[in-house]
Amino acid sequence: MKRYLALSGGVGGAKLAAGLAQALPPDSLLIAVNVGDDFEHLGLTICPDLDTVLYTLAGVVHPQQGWGRGDESFGVLDELRRLGGDGWFTLGDRDIALHLLRRQLLSQGLSLSAVSAELARRLGVAASVLPISDQPVRTIVHTDQGTLAFQDYFVRLRCEPALRAIDFEGAGKARLAPAVRALLASPELAGVIVCPSNPYLSLAPMLAITELRESLRTLKVPVVAVSPIVAGAAIKGPTAKIMRELGVHPQASVIADLYADFVDVVIVDEADAALAAGNPRFAVAPTVMKTVAQKLALANHCIELIGKLHR
Amino acid sequence: MKRYLALSGGVGGAKLAAGLAQALPPDSLLIAVNVGDDFEHLGLTICPDLDTVLYTLAGVVHPQQGWGRGDESFGVLDELRRLGGDGWFTLGDRDIALHLLRRQLLSQGLSLSAVSAELARRLGVAASVLPISDQPVRTIVHTDQGTLAFQDYFVRLRCEPALRAIDFEGAGKARLAPAVRALLASPELAGVIVCPSNPYLSLAPMLAITELRESLRTLKVPVVAVSPIVAGAAIKGPTAKIMRELGVHPQASVIADLYADFVDVVIVDEADAALAAGNPRFAVAPTVMKTVAQKLALANHCIELIGKLHR
Repeated sequence: MKRYLALSGGVGGAKLAAGLAQALPPDSLLIAVNVGDDFEHLGLTICPDLDTVLYTLAGVVHPQQGWGRGDESFGVLDELRRLGGDGWFTLGDRDIALHLLRRQLLSQGLSLSAVSAELARRLGVAASVLPISDQPVRTIVHTDQGTLAFQDYFVRLRCEPALRAIDFEGAGKARLAPAVRALLASPELAGVIVCPSNPYLSLAPMLAITELRESLRTLKVPVVAVSPIVAGAAIKGPTAKIMRELGVHPQASVIADLYADFVDVVIVDEADAALAAGNPRFAVAPTVMKTVAQKLALANHCIELIGKLHR
Repeated sequence: MKRYLALSGGVGGAKLAAGLAQALPPDSLLIAVNVGDDFEHLGLTICPDLDTVLYTLAGVVHPQQGWGRGDESFGVLDELRRLGGDGWFTLGDRDIALHLLRRQLLSQGLSLSAVSAELARRLGVAASVLPISDQPVRTIVHTDQGTLAFQDYFVRLRCEPALRAIDFEGAGKARLAPAVRALLASPELAGVIVCPSNPYLSLAPMLAITELRESLRTLKVPVVAVSPIVAGAAIKGPTAKIMRELGVHPQASVIADLYADFVDVVIVDEADAALAAGNPRFAVAPTVMKTVAQKLALANHCIELIGKLHR
């Protein structure tokens, strides 16, 4: 059986992950998810990217915002704010139920992988959705307003501080989750798909795990990436703003540079076809995924491209 | 200034506590509450009796059931059950907000007393509502179905197992909360009121703290108790059932026996007037508290009785 590894962050990555889950049989797909955004809040263990991928694949994600649950209530958050508690991080009631359950399973000694597999099962998600690592990796941002924990920067301050540098605490010591390591070493692995997530905030924390980057570099099967940058802007989120703050001109070709050591081909949007013309490091496809059909089409494009690269 | 100490468990005790809070200026009343029912559930620290007293005094308690919030929603619990999580303990969304806030404050290193004072402040409760101890005391019941943690017995199994014996883990080492100790030693203390809570499950865990029972025994000011048993039955809860299982005939006079070493007078209901006739260890008053006026009247009766006992 041919199997595929997808690397995903939150919203943008989750869309392609959903397409892949539709295109492939469940046991052919492992979606390894960024844990750099994970944090402890109000005594809960919150894994925003894992949750976004799970909710998206379970079909319960909020359709407009792309994260959180669609059919959600905010009884806890409303009361927490009334009581003067920390209300800056939006937590719906259903979301909190998942966090409480995750906390309970973790406190029973299960790894984050085992907990994620159990949560996927309970949400009716057939594909494997796993953390890239069972060890904590925490994104820390150095900004013009000082050093901040990721969610402080991303949610509380809405990415307003200008980014100077990014660190990934724990990445040096973190190992790949066992199932991810096994798949990377498996003769069944057909290819790796890097989803269109923020390269600095979603993919970089994963790639900072030495074991992952080394594995990808020496991999015998194709690695394709989908650019989250379309016509010089990000579909969603602060990718372009961050690129400018880091002194990088936001264009799709940057993705190829960032992943140069392990990616075979970067898929850019039709809007960036000129950029890719005549360059074998690029392929062109519609990358904007608003509909189920668009997600499936891009997923199939990635799978076909991997097939072609094998030949 | 004359000050009063009330000892209270959950629902029944909270009603008299509410009456006392109405009858007395806020800084004249300290309500020390049972912590034997406290437990960890889904990673939350739940203090059922403290919450019941707080909610009752804040005027937000569920008017019929006497615990939990009146205006409550169950978004988290519904989803938790849908996900196959532990749904046996009823937790409303507003309730969960309080538990999350408590957990956060405790994790900052505050004592349960300090956290309870802060939660009272945020709920707009002026009187002091404090745990009897800042150290954990955990009620353990030995039943015909084995040894059970209190909430397992009380909520999950609805008190159905027959009680054989009760233990209070931690009571031997627990000290009184500093404010309770200070009031018991204060020349301002006018008297102590033992609220009509379950003597075995709500008062016994408090009285198992040696420091409390010794203080009450040697106290120079009156101690009055209100019987939770009216005409051989409990107003609410399993007190009478437990008495029968422990081989005790459920009648108001038992309260006087249980508290014989420190209580001056037990107030029994008018329905038990015959029992109390001619016995100076008893006083008679309407003890059924359905209305605000009835709570206030019984509170005033307790305060007046303490005044008379001083003479």
